[in-house]
Order: sequence, then C-alpha cells, then structure tokens
Amino acid sequence: MVIRQPDTTAEAGARERQRRLTKPPGSLGRLEDLAVRLAALQGRARPTADHVHITVFAADHGVTAEGVSAYPAAVTVEMIRNFAAGGAAVSVIARRLAAELEVVDVGTAEDYEPPAGVRCERAARGSGNIRHEPAMDSATRERAEASGRASVTRALTAGADIFVGGEMGIGNTTAATALACALLDLPPAHLAGPGTGLDAAGVTHKVAVVEAALARHGRLRDDPVAALERLGGLEIAALAGAYQACGELGLSVLADGFIASVAALVAVRREPALRDWLLFAHRSGEPGHGGILDALGAEPLLDLGMRLGEGSGAAAAVPLLRLACTLHNEMATFDEAGVSES
Amino acid sequence: MVIRQPDTTAEAGARERQRRLTKPPGSLGRLEDLAVRLAALQGRARPTADHVHITVFAADHGVTAEGVSAYPAAVTVEMIRNFAAGGAAVSVIARRLAAELEVVDVGTAEDYEPPAGVRCERAARGSGNIRHEPAMDSATRERAEASGRASVTRALTAGADIFVGGEMGIGNTTAATALACALLDLPPAHLAGPGTGLDAAGVTHKVAVVEAALARHGRLRDDPVAALERLGGLEIAALAGAYQACGELGLSVLADGFIASVAALVAVRREPALRDWLLFAHRSGEPGHGGILDALGAEPLLDLGMRLGEGSGAAAAVPLLRLACTLHNEMATFDEAGVSES
Repeated sequence: MVIRQPDTTAEAGARERQRRLTKPPGSLGRLEDLAVRLAALQGRARPTADHVHITVFAADHGVTAEGVSAYPAAVTVEMIRNFAAGGAAVSVIARRLAAELEVVDVGTAEDYEPPAGVRCERAARGSGNIRHEPAMDSATRERAEASGRASVTRALTAGADIFVGGEMGIGNTTAATALACALLDLPPAHLAGPGTGLDAAGVTHKVAVVEAALARHGRLRDDPVAALERLGGLEIAALAGAYQACGELGLSVLADGFIASVAALVAVRREPALRDWLLFAHRSGEPGHGGILDALGAEPLLDLGMRLGEGSGAAAAVPLLRLACTLHNEMATFDEAGVSES
Repeated sequence: MVIRQPDTTAEAGARERQRRLTKPPGSLGRLEDLAVRLAALQGRARPTADHVHITVFAADHGVTAEGVSAYPAAVTVEMIRNFAAGGAAVSVIARRLAAELEVVDVGTAEDYEPPAGVRCERAARGSGNIRHEPAMDSATRERAEASGRASVTRALTAGADIFVGGEMGIGNTTAATALACALLDLPPAHLAGPGTGLDAAGVTHKVAVVEAALARHGRLRDDPVAALERLGGLEIAALAGAYQACGELGLSVLADGFIASVAALVAVRREPALRDWLLFAHRSGEPGHGGILDALGAEPLLDLGMRLGEGSGAAAAVPLLRLACTLHNEMATFDEAGVSES
C-alpha cells in the first residue's frame, strides 16, 4: 500500500477559518498550526483529537547481557503487569485522558502468564545480543511489524483520531542508539545517554557496546530495514510497522520520545512520505533525542525533561492537540462575535 | 497580611513519594517537580489541580490615543461580550477544562450594557495616557487591586486549587512594556514588540511612545507601586492585587504571558516572598517576555509562540498540572507493583 496524501482542501479551509477567529492572526502560535495540520491529515476542516489510541509494545533485548541498563531485564515483564494493573505512568495518563490503552508483548524472553488485557504476540523470545549477532531475522521483523500494523487496524476500527505508540524494553535505548548511529552515520558518543539512569561510567560502557555492535554489523546507513533487523528490537520494529500502517491507512501519529523517534526514523527512511503523518510530542531528557529530531526535521510540542518512554511523553501532549482542535472548532469568528478587525 | 510559607513537610513527603513510584527517578522530568511544588503550596502530600478559577480583568488604556495598537480601542468591550458569549479563546479553553471563568471590567472607557456574567467594577473609565499623565492615582490603583483580591476570595470560596489571571485591554502591551522598562531599567527597544500585530514601523513608534512616557515619569525602578500607578493599567493593577492575595491566602497561581508576568514582576518587587506562589505557564511569542521571565527567575512550562493574553496560555498549561498531580497520586510504587528497583 502507498502512503496517503494529506488533504490540501481541508487544510486550506482550516487555515481560512483560523484567519477569521476572534484573535490576532497567529496569536495562538503552534496551536493554530496543529489544528490546520490535523485538518489536513483527517481530511476535514474541523479536526478532533478526542479518541486517542495508545499501544505499548514490550520486548526484551539480548544486549542486556552486556550490562547496559540500570535495571534488571526482569523489569520488562514486571512493567507489563504494572501496565495491566493500571499503576504505570502511561496507565494513569491514559485513564485521565479517557484514551484506549493496549499492551502488546511482541517479544519478552521470560516465561510468564500474561495478565488479562495484555496481547501476547511474541515475534521471538527477545532480540539477539547485537554486540555479537543480529537482533532478529527478516521473518521475525515481519511478525513484529505485523503486530504494529494490527494495532493500528484496531485503533481505526475503534474510531481513533490519534495513534500513540509506546514501548517498554529494558536495554532498548542501547538498541535505539545503535540503530540511529547506523542510519545517521554518527559516532555512538553523540547519541548514547543514561537511559533509565546509568552513571558516567555506565554510559562509557554503553558507548563501547554500541561501537562493537556497529563494527560487527558493518555499514547500514542506506538500508533502514537491514539496520532494524541487525541492531533494533522487536518493539522498535512493531512501532515502525505501526507508523507505516498509520501512513497507509490515514491515521495521525503522535510520536513519543527517544525510542519511538528512532522507530520513526527507520520508518521514514524506508518511506519518506510517511513523515507527513508524524507529529512529535516532546523533546526527551535523553540527550541523543535532539539529533534524531533534527534528522526528522521535527520540533516537538513539549520540552519537560521527560525520559520514561511507555508513550508517556506523547500522552502528556494529547491535551494540547485537543485544545488546538477545540479552539479551532468552537471559537467565534469576528463576524459572529461582532468584534472589529485590525 | 503576610505572604504564607510553603509547607516543607508536605514537600518532603511528596518528594519521597516520587522516589518510590514505578519509574526511574527523575524520568517524568518537570512533571515531578510540579507535583512536589504543588504539594508544598497546597500543604498536602497529594496535590490536585482539578478546580481551576480563571478571572479575566478588562480595562482600557488612554495611551491608545497615541496609535500604539493594531486594533481599535472598541475591541476591549467587544471582547468582553465575546468572553461572556463563550466565543473567545479563553472561554473555549475554560469550557474544555471545566474551569470557572469570571470576567471583571475593572476600567473600560466606553458606555455599554455589561452582559450577564460580567462583573462591572470599574476603578476608573480607562487609565490615563501615560505619555502625558499618570495611568491612575493611588485610590484608583487600590480599587483595581481590591477587585483582583476579591476575585481570589471568590476562587477560594469555590474551592479552587489553581488561580489563573487573564487580561484584556487594547494598548496594554504598551503599558506593560513601560512598566517593565521602569522596573528593570531597560531601554524600551529591549522589551517592546508587536503586541496584537504591529508592523516594524508600528513597533518603532511604540518604542518612542514608551520612551516619552518613561522620560515624563522619571526614575521608578525602586518603587513598584509608583511605577504601577504612573505607567500601568487597571487590569495590571487588578492582577497584581490578585497575586498578592493568592500569596496571603495560600492559593497557587498559574501565571499567563507578557502582561500577566509584568503584573507578577510588580507584585514580587513589592513582596519578594510572593514569588514562591507563582508558577509560569508559557513563554509568549511577544519578544519582551523573555526579559521579564529572566528577571523573575521563571522557566515556563510551554513554549508554543502563543501571544493572545486573556489567560489563554496559562489555561493551556492546566492539563500539565493535572497530569503531574494525577501521576503523583495514582501511580503504583515499586513495592505495590512488585517491580524491581535499579
């Protein structure tokens, strides 16, 4: 399938409406642009962001064997239980926003009984240790991407206006850093950061692990799919598949932080027209995020030093999308209100 | 009355709770600090931001006779009608947030029938033209400040957790610029901007008008009350009075943009302990705002290029306060969720 084109007629109608609302032109700043952009993506002059679908994709990473995370790998499954029980950050935000929240296990390593509400769609039992082997083979990547695509189909069936993809996977900032370094041809020290909380020595070790992984897998700059298979993770592949499906099916994406942006980079490198469908929610506290955002030409809405993942940063920006739409749809025009123009 | 002290016991309890929630320490960034700060101001380890009270103070400015605005002065009253009818930006956001919205006319010049829901508490019929005369006398300032204080009393009676003060007054970026230049001892060209939409020639003229006003009224740097009376506006005085009352009565303020921040600067210069009670919502698109924020040591939550006033930028940040509180109150701890710590 091909990536859909934004609707330029709806966009022009929305822009004209903004000009007639009772405010100096441009005085709502980026909220005006957001409303116009959503109008173009939703194909209607009056966009909405009421129905938000959040899918958190969880997976394990073989590279945790190299000691690259401040937390033990068992936390991936522990957090899946926490998502399901409603105690994780994204669970709390989703409840507050009345957003749909799905949790999809696309590849944990551990044996466990998935709690009610968790979809178990393991493409593999964790990814390979990228320092020594590919993260996944092509068939595994395709299965993980298919899980992502399926979540988008469910979102559309449920009437979603906005798709948020979150991730959980101890070790995944290491995989995402390796993947981004390969695609952007940057040294690991440029993009590696503390993730969940490494100290300076931990970051130095992480850089060395990423350097070894890059050396092991060779030049991948011009092949985003090969880079994803060799250096990525199953939840990153699921996100890339979900974003691709959003572009094909015409659902706006509100992208989360570091990991989600690397998945977006993979997806946009594979299919540049997809960029139109991606809104970027926040600038992460993870220092490498800025380099990924620059490569995507993205200027996120929020800059609050969040660096949790799970889709939490994207979810935190949902109220801005809703306000942008509500202002656009409900403000009076100069004519309606009898207010003088400049 | 004296400014209240934040509750350091509640603050310590909130900080300890943040440490135990299921996330890497610090990974919710400024949302963590916000929850802790609100806990200190509200005197409870579990703060809330559900009940938001927005008061928009409206007034006219004699300095509009100098041609300093892109809009005619009649727009002040026209917008009062628009607030009351629910068509203005702040009306729409307040509805979306289920926030209380009051409109208080503290000094329009025109004869009109105030629509239902608008409080008519004119301290004067507009402020004086600051290029040639003081904006107001002391008795007028006290009346305007009393209107601001009374709105805070009503907010507390209604159970507000957060106070937002908005403003409407054609010409008020000129008054606010003059006031800030006097208090910060800065040349007008440093702080003057397009306001509702002046072109470059208009800004140059505005700078000349502010320079003339500053020359007319002399050095006011160390006397914030005199500066307010000579260069301010009635809605700016009302905001300063409201903020002072918030500090005395213990109600957190979410401050809006350029005008509101200048009112905050006046109030903090008069009573430095008040600074603790002020949260800053957004960095305005009005270029001089940065200088005011720096003087207040403020780092706002949002930076979306908004420059409308009315309290709209503060209202747009309310969902972040709510998310900060909800996350703080509802997330599971490591113990509760059975998640391993680092």
